[in-house]
Amino acid sequence: MLPQAIIAKKRDGQALTREEIEAFVRGATDSSWADYQLSALLMAIFIRGMNAKETAHFTSAMVRSGVVADLSRVRGIKVDKHSTGGVGDKISIPLAPMVAACGVPVPMISGRGLGHSGGTLDKLESIPGFITNLSLDDFSAQVARIGCALIGQTKDLAPADKKLYALRDVTATVECMPLICGSILSKKLAAGVDALVLDVKFGRGAFMKTKTEARQLAEALVHTGRAEGKQVRALLTSMDQPLGRTVGNALEVAESIACLRGEGPADVMEVAYALGTQMLLLGGAAKSEPEARGMLERVVANGSALAKFREIVTAQRGDARILDEPERLPQAKHQEALHAGRSGVVSDVDAMKVALAALRLGAGRARADDAVDPAVGIAGLVKIGERVAPDTLVGVIHANDTRALADARAMLQDAIVIGDEPVRAPVLIAAVL
Amino acid sequence: MLPQAIIAKKRDGQALTREEIEAFVRGATDSSWADYQLSALLMAIFIRGMNAKETAHFTSAMVRSGVVADLSRVRGIKVDKHSTGGVGDKISIPLAPMVAACGVPVPMISGRGLGHSGGTLDKLESIPGFITNLSLDDFSAQVARIGCALIGQTKDLAPADKKLYALRDVTATVECMPLICGSILSKKLAAGVDALVLDVKFGRGAFMKTKTEARQLAEALVHTGRAEGKQVRALLTSMDQPLGRTVGNALEVAESIACLRGEGPADVMEVAYALGTQMLLLGGAAKSEPEARGMLERVVANGSALAKFREIVTAQRGDARILDEPERLPQAKHQEALHAGRSGVVSDVDAMKVALAALRLGAGRARADDAVDPAVGIAGLVKIGERVAPDTLVGVIHANDTRALADARAMLQDAIVIGDEPVRAPVLIAAVL
Repeated sequence: MLPQAIIAKKRDGQALTREEIEAFVRGATDSSWADYQLSALLMAIFIRGMNAKETAHFTSAMVRSGVVADLSRVRGIKVDKHSTGGVGDKISIPLAPMVAACGVPVPMISGRGLGHSGGTLDKLESIPGFITNLSLDDFSAQVARIGCALIGQTKDLAPADKKLYALRDVTATVECMPLICGSILSKKLAAGVDALVLDVKFGRGAFMKTKTEARQLAEALVHTGRAEGKQVRALLTSMDQPLGRTVGNALEVAESIACLRGEGPADVMEVAYALGTQMLLLGGAAKSEPEARGMLERVVANGSALAKFREIVTAQRGDARILDEPERLPQAKHQEALHAGRSGVVSDVDAMKVALAALRLGAGRARADDAVDPAVGIAGLVKIGERVAPDTLVGVIHANDTRALADARAMLQDAIVIGDEPVRAPVLIAAVL
Repeated sequence: MLPQAIIAKKRDGQALTREEIEAFVRGATDSSWADYQLSALLMAIFIRGMNAKETAHFTSAMVRSGVVADLSRVRGIKVDKHSTGGVGDKISIPLAPMVAACGVPVPMISGRGLGHSGGTLDKLESIPGFITNLSLDDFSAQVARIGCALIGQTKDLAPADKKLYALRDVTATVECMPLICGSILSKKLAAGVDALVLDVKFGRGAFMKTKTEARQLAEALVHTGRAEGKQVRALLTSMDQPLGRTVGNALEVAESIACLRGEGPADVMEVAYALGTQMLLLGGAAKSEPEARGMLERVVANGSALAKFREIVTAQRGDARILDEPERLPQAKHQEALHAGRSGVVSDVDAMKVALAALRLGAGRARADDAVDPAVGIAGLVKIGERVAPDTLVGVIHANDTRALADARAMLQDAIVIGDEPVRAPVLIAAVL
């Protein structure tokens, strides 16, 4: 089967067979297809699309392009969660220990931040000593022993995805529903989970700008995941303003610890509880949403979620003293408070603008090979709908560079809008699929 | 201007600006775009198309990707001819000397055969000693001195086309009107011509299968060529059966010499006269079609066209004795005559099937780096509409390999159909644009 013939078929808008899609994914894995042939087909797929059957074949071939983690020594239904990416989205960090503390094993594979969106791995690595590159064997052993491990994608898991993602990034073929779907699911399914809860975000700070697009992606993910024999549920959640009050790696870890103490911002707690509820239901630990919710609230209130996080940090060689002494997390040289300057009601905190301010400070990556500064970012952010007086703090900039600080200040001032009319906080969870 | 941004624009169906198209073509020439970015944009262009303005910008950028031959020392309006490729299409070989003999300079840049279609360069190189890789300086000097030179594309002429064509060949992006248009014209315009006559072929043995497609390509070529300030005319000609009675390199040279003596097959003479007429009109050597046609018939009848070909062969170091002693052309080891085997009328000679039989004998290239056997091919082909008796010759196979001979025999028998009803010979020249 010549690559040209397969490319031509999709170019002309025809559906590809399982064999043709497997040849393509194998071509990406063993380099039997040239990069220029892969990118020509990626563009044809971007424009012509793939139907549900093709997307399932694609996902399945991507999973089988590498090894699938063997979690057979872990008892119970193994559940992971995936977010399509947002600003201030640290949910995985409090969520994984909460769910594990309720007895559902969470073998979690996370990614790094790119562009405006942060990555769980970068956040975790701001904890001194914390390692995320466990072998699959150590990963499986840790989940079996303490119920949770938080690692990055290894080169053995879905290598075709790694190859194709790098090409998509430089050929304008990233924002394509079936390709996104295959990319997300292949990594998660290769980790050996039984069930998956998806947080599909929409809004200015998300990759999907509209709820309609987010719903389409969520439906494709749920459909494809089920075709692979996995239990999958998806939440559609809003990403117009940052999640929580912090954006930046160490700052978000500190906020996550506050959540595990039951002292986190209301929106972070709400999303964590909503996702955790579905994870407990899929994991068979609860029979109803109220029951699941009650269990999660209990493990937070009685400290067992925080204790589970301590176990995870210790197991992954991190300095667990940060749980009690957050000042042991990396600290930026400069901290500058921003005040409201007038009375009124916060009518907007633009997630994308805040993200770009954090990026300017060095909290994220403009390119995949950029280094991330763990200490910098923005804390103490106001939320839409909050009343402010002139001296109310609306944000604190943490910076290691005074020029970046000045730029970020202007960007943050532009992101936060204060008006006179009362404003209702936006609906956070739009749907559960 | 990032490649990704330009790719994304075309991906979304927008028209590209002159600057964006120039960045793309420059990227192909100086390798500042990766091959996978070039192929992603080629695929987007294939599916989304390019409008007339974009096609003109593309062609112009391709011409300027290399040097433009300096033909200023050649007096008069310099006219070239281009065919989109067919089976048995040796027209350039008798045509160029005919037109040059009428006083119009013909600086002709030709290509090699690929797939089912033959190439003028391969045919010329079957003449012992004949060289086609003249420098641009020698090219220009020869045209100035004797009115005609027949060479191949040098690496200086439209290098972007060379790069993009090689990529298109392996990424299923060949059959794309604006890309074909830019590819054809850039090579011809880089050769420094003032006017161009195009032979756009349609039918089973052509790249364009229907007259409608051929007309679209012809219109795009004429429009784009005129936008570049050149005089351009196009003929739409039929390619359902092979042109002439020979397919194969040396065999077609021998037939071309017969044409220059006025003894060639009627269809080859008809197409050569029709194209030559337009070339003489564009070249300012004649004022009307009958006048031009008369001039061409005269240079054939009085031997000056043949004398011009002798001059060209001699100038390009070929053995001019082949003009009088065709047996000095490469001869195949085996010659096998095929007879009609029944009485009737030839109802079909399938150009594509004959081409594949010639390819099997070694007359063409399945891949760009294949070697061509100059001696092999098929001669003495019958034409549609001819009456045959059981012992009438319908073709003579020239082979250097008995297994290939056996295969080609079966293929040729399949290509030639003899029926009982009278059949009219197909219309050869469908339109002049």
